[in-house]
Amino acid sequence: MDVFVSGVGMTKFGRSKDPLEKMMVEAGRIALRDAGLDQVDAIFIGVMNAGELLGDSNFTALLTDIGLTGIPSTRVETVSPTGAGAFETAFHAMASGQTRSVLVLAGEKMTHLPPARSAAILSEGIDRSERRYGMTMPALAAMIAQRYGQEFKLSSSKLEDILAQVAIKNHSNGSLNPHAQFKKVITKRDYLNSQMVSYPLRLYDCAPISDGASAIVLTSHPASVKVSGIGHATDTSSLRHRASFTSFDATREAAMKAFAMAELNPLDIQLAEVDDAFTAFEIIGTEDLGFFPPGEGWKALEEGVTHLRGKLPVNPSGGLKSRGHPVGASSLAQLVEIVYQLRGEAGEERQIERAEIGLAQSTGGLGNHNFVTILERSDRRRVLKQRWRPEHRPEIKVSTRPSTPPPPEGVGTLETFTTLYATPEGFRSPLTLALVKTVTGERVIACNPDYRFPKELKIGRKVYLKTREGLYVFEKLNLWKRMRQWIKRSP
Amino acid sequence: MDVFVSGVGMTKFGRSKDPLEKMMVEAGRIALRDAGLDQVDAIFIGVMNAGELLGDSNFTALLTDIGLTGIPSTRVETVSPTGAGAFETAFHAMASGQTRSVLVLAGEKMTHLPPARSAAILSEGIDRSERRYGMTMPALAAMIAQRYGQEFKLSSSKLEDILAQVAIKNHSNGSLNPHAQFKKVITKRDYLNSQMVSYPLRLYDCAPISDGASAIVLTSHPASVKVSGIGHATDTSSLRHRASFTSFDATREAAMKAFAMAELNPLDIQLAEVDDAFTAFEIIGTEDLGFFPPGEGWKALEEGVTHLRGKLPVNPSGGLKSRGHPVGASSLAQLVEIVYQLRGEAGEERQIERAEIGLAQSTGGLGNHNFVTILERSDRRRVLKQRWRPEHRPEIKVSTRPSTPPPPEGVGTLETFTTLYATPEGFRSPLTLALVKTVTGERVIACNPDYRFPKELKIGRKVYLKTREGLYVFEKLNLWKRMRQWIKRSP
Repeated sequence: MDVFVSGVGMTKFGRSKDPLEKMMVEAGRIALRDAGLDQVDAIFIGVMNAGELLGDSNFTALLTDIGLTGIPSTRVETVSPTGAGAFETAFHAMASGQTRSVLVLAGEKMTHLPPARSAAILSEGIDRSERRYGMTMPALAAMIAQRYGQEFKLSSSKLEDILAQVAIKNHSNGSLNPHAQFKKVITKRDYLNSQMVSYPLRLYDCAPISDGASAIVLTSHPASVKVSGIGHATDTSSLRHRASFTSFDATREAAMKAFAMAELNPLDIQLAEVDDAFTAFEIIGTEDLGFFPPGEGWKALEEGVTHLRGKLPVNPSGGLKSRGHPVGASSLAQLVEIVYQLRGEAGEERQIERAEIGLAQSTGGLGNHNFVTILERSDRRRVLKQRWRPEHRPEIKVSTRPSTPPPPEGVGTLETFTTLYATPEGFRSPLTLALVKTVTGERVIACNPDYRFPKELKIGRKVYLKTREGLYVFEKLNLWKRMRQWIKRSP
Repeated sequence: MDVFVSGVGMTKFGRSKDPLEKMMVEAGRIALRDAGLDQVDAIFIGVMNAGELLGDSNFTALLTDIGLTGIPSTRVETVSPTGAGAFETAFHAMASGQTRSVLVLAGEKMTHLPPARSAAILSEGIDRSERRYGMTMPALAAMIAQRYGQEFKLSSSKLEDILAQVAIKNHSNGSLNPHAQFKKVITKRDYLNSQMVSYPLRLYDCAPISDGASAIVLTSHPASVKVSGIGHATDTSSLRHRASFTSFDATREAAMKAFAMAELNPLDIQLAEVDDAFTAFEIIGTEDLGFFPPGEGWKALEEGVTHLRGKLPVNPSGGLKSRGHPVGASSLAQLVEIVYQLRGEAGEERQIERAEIGLAQSTGGLGNHNFVTILERSDRRRVLKQRWRPEHRPEIKVSTRPSTPPPPEGVGTLETFTTLYATPEGFRSPLTLALVKTVTGERVIACNPDYRFPKELKIGRKVYLKTREGLYVFEKLNLWKRMRQWIKRSP
């Protein structure tokens, strides 16, 4: 049974004085009006953390405000891509035949809290044992970016340049989007002047804290856009149990499912909204989605392929980076942008020509809750194609918590690292965090609060691993010093 | 497409030292083993408020622990009946044909917090403007109970006796349930000795604070039990905008949908788990479900119809009252009990004979988020019956927030009231709260912190309504005094 997108709507993203419900009602009303409906069979609400962000956990009042009292209302949460999760859930309700029209409503209100409090709430998605080290989302993303640079042999200035290009492109696109939080075109100089958050990620590598809401109406009654594929996959929440540090298996798996369901290939996609909560994620995303081979996403960016007037525009909306990132609302806003583009309603400056198929990808936590959604014009002529499978897809590693005792102190290898400047409350800044492979082959997160010189560190280098107050701490490996200590201790 | 229940599982409910994930993994493993599966296509997780209760908002780690890393995972929240919400969402995924097997997992961890903090989190579901008065869930339920007594002409001692009978019956059933939190059979004397929470509701009228988890596996592959009907409806979160104060429209609406989908009548139901978060809710629930006419649910209880060996056993598990109420887990545990009963696995003492069709009803907030789910034995011979419609179903009143200015001070009528003894932080105990109808026909919540004698109050009596610091306050209407003041003020 086909499921159609009959209406879309969103508020301007950014800092808003309105309460969350008011923003959601506004987005919902726009989408209902767009669909020409004043009633739907059910509502699906995506809000990531209303309890802690707002001290509220019942969105029934929202229904009253929007004039929909009485209909089934379900709140869905799938970490950051909560909007995409609500969309998938709504799609199931439609495809099951139990509903003939539904409203998907996603929003988040974050700017009213001190940034440190918002950051703390967002980092609740991080594995508990890794959070103990002061780990934050930017720090994890930074470790991924470092590893990407090392694996694909990019110098640190080259990596810096690529990340800057993502930010510059997305700010440029966002400057044309009336719904975007930032309308400012930025230069490489602006990028370099922005504060270091977690080496090598700067403030301009990170999506902002925002308020906003987005909405979509799905109907069984035909409309100009339809849902053609949805994929959703998860991965371990802990970085140390991952199969890869330069790719997200959950995106690859979700993409495979979405392409299979849509009977499409990555080559069929004409525009994409790819999660850029951190600039490095956009590059990795375009590789995981099969648009470009591993390690070549940055080349496509450099060559202008992913630019607004390129062959495959990525984030024509400005992305999370520039349109803003009210967490729950973002992944639904990606779909709103795809619909605008497929309908030819994105506005003269931003409109992509002849767009018939668009894809949105969203990343939850550190790539542990990812979605891929494909929308297409209903009047597109369908051609049955061969099923796509990502090349060399590594098997997803079903990791269990280590039941073995923690490895003893000793030599380890630096797998990746970052120096975190914007540390969580209670942690001294800067804080160097690393993923270390022990001699027994296990991976552990380790910190070194004293390390102020990340340039002395290098992926692949040996370090000395100790435990202190239940945490792993790493130090520079000074073989002579170690040997002298060892000799002294000998009888 | 038929959707089957292939596996069920739950932990013992009560006070547990285990973290939430551990309880959920335990319940999930039991259900998977019961279904004979070690993999499913997707997982649906019901936890009401993990953010505030646990400071955690990413359940991906759970998947790793249960050996299911990689599969789509969606968290669903529908206030208290979050387990039923996750079940409905999972049912849609199955019925849409997108999944062939799913695990529904619901749990809550609450006993580690001080009771006042848990209560504060639970009352976030209450309309914000009503919360300002110190309104709690027991206070709202008490106001409903009072109104029920008045409307159906029950003396206060008769009402007390009926409520006690619900508690006594459910404790008796729970004493036979190995998963129940309380195994204690209680007497009327125990009931009367229990602390007054919000007049007329005592501690034994309220479900406890509990920890626990429950799980269900759904498959497209046939099993002995199948899902035959699901209904879900909402209502205003504010009491003052309700059409009725002795019935929940959301239950009636949800029941109508579920019976229509199952092609069954209330008379077909052989056992039911009915929300008894507050004893009065069980009575009202059995009426709203069409089992008994309005105002006659208490008679059926007195006559033993809803007893374990009665014609229509209600809450054979012990209900929320005695099995325990780990909020998110409860409504899924209701379904687990129905499955045990339909399969003949409820244990000699608790097993209901020849049970082929069972129903579970759950209430969210003050009846603003209700579910009705019907399960039946797959081998039952189906007979097509006439569609059921509840008698005299009042139209659901789509109320909008009052845009008119608040009514002036003046005379009003007491629609219902309670005296709250267990007041939230910052409120003096006891606190008398009332729903007052103003001369202009609007309903407002009003308080009287000084009223220590609820026996002087009576539904239908006139009171004097004033505003003080932005809140409505009511006083006894002393006509002579008012007139003297009025004369004094005259020139």
